[in-house]
Amino acid sequence: MPIYNSPTKDLQFVLHNLLNVSTQDISGYDELDADFTNAVLEEAGKVATDVLAPLNPVGDVEGCKLENGVVRTPTGFDKAFKVMKDGGWTALDCDPEYGGQGLPYVMNSAVQEAFVSANMAFNMYQGLTHGAYSAIHAHGTDAQKQKWLPKMVTCEWTGTMNLTESHCGTDLGLMRTKAVPQDDGSFKITGQKIFISAGDHDLAENIVHLVLAKIPGGPDGIKGVSLFIVPKIMVDDEGTLGDPNGVTVGKIEEKMGIHGNATCVMDYDEATGYLLGDEHKGMRAMFTMMNEARVGVGLQGYAQAEVAYQNAVFYANDRLQGRAVTGAQFPEKAADPLIVHPDIRRNLMDQKSFVEGARAFTMWGANLIDRAHKNNDAEADGLISLMTPVLKGFLTDKGFEYATAAQQVYGGHGYIEEWGMSQFARDARIAMIYEGANGVQALDLVGRKLAQDGGKHVMAFFEMVKTFIKENDGNEALKADFLEPLKAASKDMQSAGMYFMQNGMKNPNNALSGSYDFMHLMGHVCLGLMWARMAKAAQEALDAGDTDRDFLETKIATGRYYMARQLPATAMHLARINTGADTVMALDAAQF
Amino acid sequence: MPIYNSPTKDLQFVLHNLLNVSTQDISGYDELDADFTNAVLEEAGKVATDVLAPLNPVGDVEGCKLENGVVRTPTGFDKAFKVMKDGGWTALDCDPEYGGQGLPYVMNSAVQEAFVSANMAFNMYQGLTHGAYSAIHAHGTDAQKQKWLPKMVTCEWTGTMNLTESHCGTDLGLMRTKAVPQDDGSFKITGQKIFISAGDHDLAENIVHLVLAKIPGGPDGIKGVSLFIVPKIMVDDEGTLGDPNGVTVGKIEEKMGIHGNATCVMDYDEATGYLLGDEHKGMRAMFTMMNEARVGVGLQGYAQAEVAYQNAVFYANDRLQGRAVTGAQFPEKAADPLIVHPDIRRNLMDQKSFVEGARAFTMWGANLIDRAHKNNDAEADGLISLMTPVLKGFLTDKGFEYATAAQQVYGGHGYIEEWGMSQFARDARIAMIYEGANGVQALDLVGRKLAQDGGKHVMAFFEMVKTFIKENDGNEALKADFLEPLKAASKDMQSAGMYFMQNGMKNPNNALSGSYDFMHLMGHVCLGLMWARMAKAAQEALDAGDTDRDFLETKIATGRYYMARQLPATAMHLARINTGADTVMALDAAQF
Repeated sequence: MPIYNSPTKDLQFVLHNLLNVSTQDISGYDELDADFTNAVLEEAGKVATDVLAPLNPVGDVEGCKLENGVVRTPTGFDKAFKVMKDGGWTALDCDPEYGGQGLPYVMNSAVQEAFVSANMAFNMYQGLTHGAYSAIHAHGTDAQKQKWLPKMVTCEWTGTMNLTESHCGTDLGLMRTKAVPQDDGSFKITGQKIFISAGDHDLAENIVHLVLAKIPGGPDGIKGVSLFIVPKIMVDDEGTLGDPNGVTVGKIEEKMGIHGNATCVMDYDEATGYLLGDEHKGMRAMFTMMNEARVGVGLQGYAQAEVAYQNAVFYANDRLQGRAVTGAQFPEKAADPLIVHPDIRRNLMDQKSFVEGARAFTMWGANLIDRAHKNNDAEADGLISLMTPVLKGFLTDKGFEYATAAQQVYGGHGYIEEWGMSQFARDARIAMIYEGANGVQALDLVGRKLAQDGGKHVMAFFEMVKTFIKENDGNEALKADFLEPLKAASKDMQSAGMYFMQNGMKNPNNALSGSYDFMHLMGHVCLGLMWARMAKAAQEALDAGDTDRDFLETKIATGRYYMARQLPATAMHLARINTGADTVMALDAAQF
Repeated sequence: MPIYNSPTKDLQFVLHNLLNVSTQDISGYDELDADFTNAVLEEAGKVATDVLAPLNPVGDVEGCKLENGVVRTPTGFDKAFKVMKDGGWTALDCDPEYGGQGLPYVMNSAVQEAFVSANMAFNMYQGLTHGAYSAIHAHGTDAQKQKWLPKMVTCEWTGTMNLTESHCGTDLGLMRTKAVPQDDGSFKITGQKIFISAGDHDLAENIVHLVLAKIPGGPDGIKGVSLFIVPKIMVDDEGTLGDPNGVTVGKIEEKMGIHGNATCVMDYDEATGYLLGDEHKGMRAMFTMMNEARVGVGLQGYAQAEVAYQNAVFYANDRLQGRAVTGAQFPEKAADPLIVHPDIRRNLMDQKSFVEGARAFTMWGANLIDRAHKNNDAEADGLISLMTPVLKGFLTDKGFEYATAAQQVYGGHGYIEEWGMSQFARDARIAMIYEGANGVQALDLVGRKLAQDGGKHVMAFFEMVKTFIKENDGNEALKADFLEPLKAASKDMQSAGMYFMQNGMKNPNNALSGSYDFMHLMGHVCLGLMWARMAKAAQEALDAGDTDRDFLETKIATGRYYMARQLPATAMHLARINTGADTVMALDAAQF
């Protein structure tokens, strides 16, 4: 059975040493003192370790089953879901007006990491609900909010997002699902949606589907798409459950991973739906869910790498194999543990330095979301809009890469399902695909976000990096190991941006051929900035006499590894970008 | 159902335009004229497409089952195995003295690619047999060869390799399986072996297990290991099958992939075994199998990427989604196919340029093996010894990476098992692990092979690259696109070697911390050399009036992509290597 322990200490370091959350001028942040956040994270960690993690392999092996039209979740999921509901874990950052606890999003994100690491498939039932909650909260009428949100906050009713159809995923303009207006103001929804996570299950008494559909006679393509609330069971004005709506599960998909979550084909046959937001403005409403969901998916990426890393470290210390090349370190044992070998170290350091950097990046992003939403801060909003595709694309690509690297530490045992390492890799794989495949994230980043508002958000980011370097110019402890590599990486990013500007005008393919590399290049610069800031924060804590010297020194050493060994990737990405579209677009389709 | 078509034309290009096999002065190569190899490859391709590929998903879904102590293979495997045997495909390069067809190894490798792409799990039953055949052929007595080989050549009897025990994989010195000498010269073998591919099945009437074990009283550790022939069913001197030997299947492992191949726990309980080769020299005999197996595993890596690539191309042409950024290419359709998008191109070109480079590298390696074995050429032997860890480690890492990249082209459908892309990735994953995990390959390369025979093999490789660049100095078609990038990459490799020499002496961890990066750096240089040679060969064919201009021009364009977009990775690997052990070894084990 794989292990999992929530990295509370590291989350605390990010929240308090890096972000200084409790002193930030954002509504609700004053509550986030270190004792409070520690208590919440400790409790969440217990739920993750004791309740969710043991069910992770159960969910993988059993999967979900469609029985007489109803989806059955794996053994124990119902009890665990009750624990989540009873503990109020589903309501942490929800609006108190609808029963939520009103904590900042950054706090919820820190808690989510533990739940996702412990059991990603299970956590999606509440994760999707949270996304649907956000869309209704942002776009619903008062009556809709009163009707749907209180039960969704508690997860008595869960939620889903219905976008994809079999012939259209990214290109939702091709959508066929129809919404026919009725005299009473409701709509009849008819069509088939696929890949609906948590589309049906036995964990809640009702499911609130948010469904994209086209109202006949509306504009063609994506501009004619509207969003609807379509409950599984009809609800009257007093909130009492009535008859089933015209929604059925066509089948459950057999997937590579996240078997514990039911991925359903949903058939809508004149199902009653209620317009959410404006007619034909469904994409805008859906994007409220999607942006939040994308940051959440980025978190899934590194959270799977985290749990895989923890197990890899355990195994590397436990497994005796070979001798250190510099001489036996445990001569009394039959062999040394794997962790003495440099290449095992290299692998573990890659994982560790990524995960800790990704954690900081994600919490920084969550902090920006709070600042944007609670303070109506346009700069923060612009910055998180720029960062969202990087958080999603880079962290999930790397999360899968390092979950796979952790599996590699186990040798042959890594390939055997019983040991659990395969599941982490298989589960992590989906995060690169859903909520917009990573190629689409790269397109969003280079095709849209870089130039958004005249490019001012990316300029603000460069300025942030530059300012940090300048402000710490005299800091000899940071200079060679952190500031110089960061400066070089940031310069690579600027050169790439310059290349796009100079060559993308002539031919947009010159920019888009480098979009994927740019997403990775920028991801490295972001993690580099996080590491430089963390190293500074750790050094300051050491200087101030913080007694946990071991933790802080480890933090700095891990950062040094990232700067020395990961940041050199930026030059490679730049070199690829600088070759433009010529070799990428050289072949005719038939020549592949 | 996924598609597969053997790339006969490309294999022909490698055999004849790149390697000019039929004119090489190696015994048996004179038979390899283009018509002959084409006929063989066409026939093999038909078997692969018509017989093996349709069974690939069947094997994945059904897996193998242990019933009453006997392993049952998936539906249809028995009939397909009969096709392989009846067609003589198991005997292609085996010794005619024992019923083989005596073709060169390079020919067998080209055929193997098709079989492995079509159905990797199935092909392992004969692949393991071939490995066991080679070990007996190299180390057996005449009597042993007469007794065991004829039936193994035809796969009437199959073979296995038994190395791993639950507590030891890489470090076989820890082995516990015992071999107790008997009065009749045989041994009684007792112990448990794990991860035994094709350990039991219903495809052959007998299985010849090659088992590593220790003879009590022998030297400690790896020096006391001997190799034994242990049949599943006893065989008398006339070759008649008798009673079952003391070998049973403990269980079949549940794995991430290659479900069609039974990975068994094998229990030996006073099983009768016959010493193969010398007492306590088992590792040497086993390495005969392992080196061949490692090249074969490298082939598995790119062969899985090849079939995944073929399907990705099919889907990219078939799936309509979005519009080309430069304007609709198929305005009459609802959307353009995926292949118009630059990032889809980037992904497909990464895959294509890798697979074709890897194919050339592998066939070149197989050619070196022929030269070493058939001509007793010590230089070829040294070179293939140097290349083996690169062929295994680099091609399987990249093979998995690109099988995963091909899966990505499918978006959400890539994650659904029914579409088959997940299987290619899951199957490819094992190749990074077995026959020596890739970290061990890197250790072998940097810790042993680089310095072997005073470093003369790596010097010979540098010389080969240098000579090629020099000889083609005046070739303007090659210069900027091929020779200069190759020169730069080769220089990076030399710098890395220099770093190891200067710093590895002081502290071997400085070299071993960079071993994995060096394996990849060298892999890129090897593929870069292959591409430069292929571009030259393609250009020469064009100049000579070869009518298949489209194929040849595509070849050159694909090579340009590799040089421009893949070779820049060498500088990143060098930068990582040059940081040495400092950041890699900075932490105590407890600080992870």
